[in-house]
Amino acid sequence: MAQHILVLHGPNLNMLGTREPGIYGRQTLADINARLAEVCAEADAGCAVFQSNHEGELVDRIQATRHDETEFIIINAGAYTHTSVAIRDALAAVGLPFIEVHLSNVYKREPFRHHSYLSDQAQGVIAGLGAYGYEAALRYALAH
Amino acid sequence: MAQHILVLHGPNLNMLGTREPGIYGRQTLADINARLAEVCAEADAGCAVFQSNHEGELVDRIQATRHDETEFIIINAGAYTHTSVAIRDALAAVGLPFIEVHLSNVYKREPFRHHSYLSDQAQGVIAGLGAYGYEAALRYALAH
Amino acid sequence: MAQHILVLHGPNLNMLGTREPGIYGRQTLADINARLAEVCAEADAGCAVFQSNHEGELVDRIQATRHDETEFIIINAGAYTHTSVAIRDALAAVGLPFIEVHLSNVYKREPFRHHSYLSDQAQGVIAGLGAYGYEAALRYALAH
Amino acid sequence: MAQHILVLHGPNLNMLGTREPGIYGRQTLADINARLAEVCAEADAGCAVFQSNHEGELVDRIQATRHDETEFIIINAGAYTHTSVAIRDALAAVGLPFIEVHLSNVYKREPFRHHSYLSDQAQGVIAGLGAYGYEAALRYALAH
Amino acid sequence: MAQHILVLHGPNLNMLGTREPGIYGRQTLADINARLAEVCAEADAGCAVFQSNHEGELVDRIQATRHDETEFIIINAGAYTHTSVAIRDALAAVGLPFIEVHLSNVYKREPFRHHSYLSDQAQGVIAGLGAYGYEAALRYALAH
Amino acid sequence: MAQHILVLHGPNLNMLGTREPGIYGRQTLADINARLAEVCAEADAGCAVFQSNHEGELVDRIQATRHDETEFIIINAGAYTHTSVAIRDALAAVGLPFIEVHLSNVYKREPFRHHSYLSDQAQGVIAGLGAYGYEAALRYALAH
Amino acid sequence: MAQHILVLHGPNLNMLGTREPGIYGRQTLADINARLAEVCAEADAGCAVFQSNHEGELVDRIQATRHDETEFIIINAGAYTHTSVAIRDALAAVGLPFIEVHLSNVYKREPFRHHSYLSDQAQGVIAGLGAYGYEAALRYALAH
Amino acid sequence: MAQHILVLHGPNLNMLGTREPGIYGRQTLADINARLAEVCAEADAGCAVFQSNHEGELVDRIQATRHDETEFIIINAGAYTHTSVAIRDALAAVGLPFIEVHLSNVYKREPFRHHSYLSDQAQGVIAGLGAYGYEAALRYALAH
Amino acid sequence: MAQHILVLHGPNLNMLGTREPGIYGRQTLADINARLAEVCAEADAGCAVFQSNHEGELVDRIQATRHDETEFIIINAGAYTHTSVAIRDALAAVGLPFIEVHLSNVYKREPFRHHSYLSDQAQGVIAGLGAYGYEAALRYALAH
Amino acid sequence: MAQHILVLHGPNLNMLGTREPGIYGRQTLADINARLAEVCAEADAGCAVFQSNHEGELVDRIQATRHDETEFIIINAGAYTHTSVAIRDALAAVGLPFIEVHLSNVYKREPFRHHSYLSDQAQGVIAGLGAYGYEAALRYALAH
Amino acid sequence: MAQHILVLHGPNLNMLGTREPGIYGRQTLADINARLAEVCAEADAGCAVFQSNHEGELVDRIQATRHDETEFIIINAGAYTHTSVAIRDALAAVGLPFIEVHLSNVYKREPFRHHSYLSDQAQGVIAGLGAYGYEAALRYALAH
Amino acid sequence: MAQHILVLHGPNLNMLGTREPGIYGRQTLADINARLAEVCAEADAGCAVFQSNHEGELVDRIQATRHDETEFIIINAGAYTHTSVAIRDALAAVGLPFIEVHLSNVYKREPFRHHSYLSDQAQGVIAGLGAYGYEAALRYALAH
Repeated sequence: MAQHILVLHGPNLNMLGTREPGIYGRQTLADINARLAEVCAEADAGCAVFQSNHEGELVDRIQATRHDETEFIIINAGAYTHTSVAIRDALAAVGLPFIEVHLSNVYKREPFRHHSYLSDQAQGVIAGLGAYGYEAALRYALAH
Repeated sequence: MAQHILVLHGPNLNMLGTREPGIYGRQTLADINARLAEVCAEADAGCAVFQSNHEGELVDRIQATRHDETEFIIINAGAYTHTSVAIRDALAAVGLPFIEVHLSNVYKREPFRHHSYLSDQAQGVIAGLGAYGYEAALRYALAH
Repeated sequence: MAQHILVLHGPNLNMLGTREPGIYGRQTLADINARLAEVCAEADAGCAVFQSNHEGELVDRIQATRHDETEFIIINAGAYTHTSVAIRDALAAVGLPFIEVHLSNVYKREPFRHHSYLSDQAQGVIAGLGAYGYEAALRYALAH
Repeated sequence: MAQHILVLHGPNLNMLGTREPGIYGRQTLADINARLAEVCAEADAGCAVFQSNHEGELVDRIQATRHDETEFIIINAGAYTHTSVAIRDALAAVGLPFIEVHLSNVYKREPFRHHSYLSDQAQGVIAGLGAYGYEAALRYALAH
Repeated sequence: MAQHILVLHGPNLNMLGTREPGIYGRQTLADINARLAEVCAEADAGCAVFQSNHEGELVDRIQATRHDETEFIIINAGAYTHTSVAIRDALAAVGLPFIEVHLSNVYKREPFRHHSYLSDQAQGVIAGLGAYGYEAALRYALAH
Repeated sequence: MAQHILVLHGPNLNMLGTREPGIYGRQTLADINARLAEVCAEADAGCAVFQSNHEGELVDRIQATRHDETEFIIINAGAYTHTSVAIRDALAAVGLPFIEVHLSNVYKREPFRHHSYLSDQAQGVIAGLGAYGYEAALRYALAH
Repeated sequence: MAQHILVLHGPNLNMLGTREPGIYGRQTLADINARLAEVCAEADAGCAVFQSNHEGELVDRIQATRHDETEFIIINAGAYTHTSVAIRDALAAVGLPFIEVHLSNVYKREPFRHHSYLSDQAQGVIAGLGAYGYEAALRYALAH
Repeated sequence: MAQHILVLHGPNLNMLGTREPGIYGRQTLADINARLAEVCAEADAGCAVFQSNHEGELVDRIQATRHDETEFIIINAGAYTHTSVAIRDALAAVGLPFIEVHLSNVYKREPFRHHSYLSDQAQGVIAGLGAYGYEAALRYALAH
Repeated sequence: MAQHILVLHGPNLNMLGTREPGIYGRQTLADINARLAEVCAEADAGCAVFQSNHEGELVDRIQATRHDETEFIIINAGAYTHTSVAIRDALAAVGLPFIEVHLSNVYKREPFRHHSYLSDQAQGVIAGLGAYGYEAALRYALAH
Repeated sequence: MAQHILVLHGPNLNMLGTREPGIYGRQTLADINARLAEVCAEADAGCAVFQSNHEGELVDRIQATRHDETEFIIINAGAYTHTSVAIRDALAAVGLPFIEVHLSNVYKREPFRHHSYLSDQAQGVIAGLGAYGYEAALRYALAH
Repeated sequence: MAQHILVLHGPNLNMLGTREPGIYGRQTLADINARLAEVCAEADAGCAVFQSNHEGELVDRIQATRHDETEFIIINAGAYTHTSVAIRDALAAVGLPFIEVHLSNVYKREPFRHHSYLSDQAQGVIAGLGAYGYEAALRYALAH
Repeated sequence: MAQHILVLHGPNLNMLGTREPGIYGRQTLADINARLAEVCAEADAGCAVFQSNHEGELVDRIQATRHDETEFIIINAGAYTHTSVAIRDALAAVGLPFIEVHLSNVYKREPFRHHSYLSDQAQGVIAGLGAYGYEAALRYALAH
């Protein structure tokens, strides 16, 4: 039962709510983070959140879990899902369990979004459930 | 907010608990169905369950939703995920929203399990969260 | 000039008229069968019809032509067109000439519908002419 | 119900009856055209016929339908089926519905004959029914 | 030294002797089963036999070995060899050793027959030895 | 600074203005040629124009530059862009610099339009700028 | 008629003039920017310029157009053209029209440079016209 | 021992001697034809020669052998080697033996020149021997 | 009923018993050959054995069957199975029926071991049955 | 004989010693750098070292060699080896000789690690020799 | 004008005349060599001949041309054409011009015979002309 | 710390110094072997050397390490790197650690040289460092 959870948001997720709402919905990233904070508070667990458009910063943040208490990572790596071996390697290097989340159903979209460098390293994958996907991942992490 | 939900289990899922527990866990299908019934009961919703090893029976059952009250389908098509255009077509024919669930993380397994005939038709996909994957899909269906 | 003709309809064709009418049209399977019966009656020929959602039942029905008078098969194998080697083998085993029919123009649709396990065994292929495709196949069979 | 129909024959179809009769049958192109003229006459419709071995001439003829009364095209583009984007574009440019016809079952032949640049633009495709394929296409055009 | 052996015959094998004898030989399935029964009798072992044209029935029969004494399976899955992940999964689920048999040399035939969903799970593969292939597999099972 | 420029228009470009205006715009080929003539006149340069639906005529016209003063070619080969090695070879044979122009953004369209037999021989490529693409190519040619 | 234009230069373009002049020419980035500023000044339009070797910084800059007046983007994403889904997504997120520019003719170079993650989202593409490519894109933007 | 031989030259071969002499040598087509005439004269055989840049004209000329005395064809289809199914079909339609000749060694050149639509229909193939390739083909034809 | 059988062992099979026993078992090649000699002796047939690490020596030995009494070949070509067209050609040249044997189940191993240059020429294939595979092949040869 | 050498370490290499020691060994990056400093000191040469998780920073650092004395680069680009065209382009832009080093044998690992964007630009490649790989590269650089 | 020519025959060519005469003809290798000796004698040139079934011996023989007078090689590498990089490298190492000859038209045969490791290194290729192919190659070598 | 090392040189490496010096350098194989002997002598270790153009002889030599003291192999398999499963299997059979060496940077050369049958079995790979590559491999072997 993980008590310290890190939620990572990749590139362009800071634009949620305004960016292509037909695909990504109208909730902002702040809305999502607020909801996750609520769920964590209920469970008396700690939930850190980090967003960056920079691949290197996401790698740095993942590495930093070596020196904080993170036990589980929930990651929506956005576009880097499909192109970043560095994030994959960082996740493998810290060795924490993680769930890969996508707001949209990536399998409905362009073929290059069907491949993820993270999926075969992840505990599980949730796609297409919108903001609820993060929440489901969080509840799974808190319970396992 | 869907009130009538059909949960479909495909081939070999009747063997859960005994079949390759390293991959699929120790819960039986009866355990999973019992948990889903609880969640439905809490939400005062109806939850039908059907398992078959026969592709044609799964097609028949999906078609039967035309004449019952089903509003949402949760489907773990098992091996037919990767080979059945007929199930895909049946889901398209009845036109109900559905979520595709896999107990194991299929992206960690043989390459032929990375392709699904259902994913691009689904609302979303959940893989690798074990029995909780069904529950998360159910909660999503009840809430949307 | 074939006098005994078997018309086979594959999975989900029983839903015609209600299923995705934009793709498949508004005629029901009963409408189509009635029209084919008329054409056979005019030609004083026998026309048997069989629909199933089960691959195995279609195989069984094809094999059964060894013991009835069928001289020609018209088959719309639906989704099994793209996935069933068993139906292909059954057709080869009974050795009757057959025409493959599709209501919609499969070449306009998803890439996996562009390949058929039946086409290279068939006498001919008709796609995209709607219900008239069956009639054209039937008239061909009656005349050759 | 199309009243003015253009039938296009592509390269080498002028050799019908003498060319590889094992594949293409013994009817000449004149025989086929005569039969089509009969069917048109019965229906009191106009039926123009054009054959060329030149891709550019076929493109020119298709474009010319902008200035005559053609409502429907039946095209057996022969070898150009597999290589001509120009004929595809000409058909798209004039925007008339058309049916693609092949005398032989192209799916039984060399793999390069399994791909057509026309099929996904066509109303429908008929292959392997010999000269009757043209007639079936014509009847469809006259009736729709 | 397996004492209880299940021999599974897939789709269209019930037509042996009449179906494409150039490929499959003139022996009937009854002839083959009789020969296998003799060999089992000599070895004082039990030999169950099952044929079906239905993928789901083959899956059911494989699962049923959980509740009978089967120690070894000999399977000629016919066409399902090339298309059935469900049979593969059923074999993995029951965890019994098995040998894959083909009457004809599948590597001489259409390319889609060169891939098997079973081979990498099997103990071994025998192809092209006709009915003797079953016997060799049986003798191997009895001896190991 | 090229003073004699040949502008080549491939198949179906004679239909501009009427053909699929959503893709190709409403300007006619005469409009485009008039604009190019203006630009050439301003620069006191000569600008020859040629359109054909025939691959062979385009090859002939390119070869003819050996005997006129052409110093630079601007070519929109239309559909032949994707299928004609002969035009590629003709351009290589005369050895003049050329720019490949497409009215529409071919990279947004069918995959077979993403490959050009001319691009790797061209000085440059302009796609998707409509009629202005020709003008930009012309200004480049006049200036270099 | 766009009045505020952002010109983005990707990685290594700051080295222009010294880097592989055989491929990229001898003009520096400052030379190019100066020329673009002239053209903008003539048209009384605003032209912002940004170069970075960092994918994340380019994403940030594109996102920033949500809060400035940019109406049109001209982007030479350099190496990131071929690898960055994040830049593609940022461009889609802000929803501005853009033209993709390459100094060299990328279709003459290594195969991995023939694919762009941006082209199918762009209004148009210009490659191989050297610094003039930027100018042509700018003139197009100012005029449309 | 063929006595009437047709030599066909495809597109751009009329430019021999001036076109890319590094690849194709300095001999003109007239030189080559003169040499072939000499060899035929020695053998007291007839040798017709035809060159065209038009695919359709080459098809027409091949078809015309049905009505002249041609017994053997030597063809250098140039660029159409790689793109013309129509020429392949014409050669098959007339059913004459033929040898495919290339002046340059096509296997040293771009990958798209490694595939020929003619080779698997030809008696033989000669590439890279320059003008002597025609002569060798001719001597073979005269002797067999 | 073949009376003179040649058993060929390819490269590294001389190391059996010591080489990777997890894959190949603990029997030596001498053990296997002794068992085969026994079976031949029982059947009063002749059984020659040859092993070589040299592709050319295997080709030579196969050719030598033209001048001895060999009626049937059993071949485990080891690594040359996957790389030697020369052995394939030698087998075709002498025209004897042969069975391809592999000790291990090659379909469980690296992908390059799934393709054999011999299988489509062989009477049959046996893989994964260890040393018994040779014996089964031998019994088949003696009986047919 | 290079006297000024730059050693570049890509993403996640700062975690050496703790990260997946089964793959990467127990030495820290500091250990490796210390050893390289020793070797440089012995040779009286200068050795600069730089590590970053950011692709852009690595590009910046490579570009900076234009303004320092670097004569040779040794680069372990880690994950960016497989995804970064920008680093490839930066290396080409500065035009210095470089050796690509990998601690682990990348050819033993996931297929996406078998391709490098750097190898065909490098002087040489060393993989799988652990920290000694850097030393060997350094000695080569010092000696050539 | 080469005066010393080496003719190399690869594996199984020693069986000519008896091996698959439908493909390779009835002439023996001795017949072919005799004819080549005649042609050389006429031209007063030296012609060495070597056949081997061993790849290494062919490599050795090619290398030996460094120490004899060979000026030109004619090679029919048989099966090694398709699999031997070593022969390719040996030919490159000695740097002599060579012509690749095949008796049969390899483009009519199995797909793996369509690729040659030698063709892109050869001066030219002759296939399908039977024994005359060697003679044509020889005459070319003597004349150039 | 290996004390007995075998260095294997594959086909055509005996020609070093004369063969394509632009690619392989001017050192002879004797020069390289002499240098390696020096390094071994310094380390008081034994260093055996073997070169062959014959795949089978290389296999034999590798197998022979079962009966001598070899503890480590350094292999430059030359052309056989890309084609020999037999050498791969021999190395696996003897189970000794080995390093794969290439004089040239194979990743700069023809695509077929980018794949090695040895790399995923090797301890490491060194390419492009010329003769120093052998020395580096040797020092690694002596030290580990």
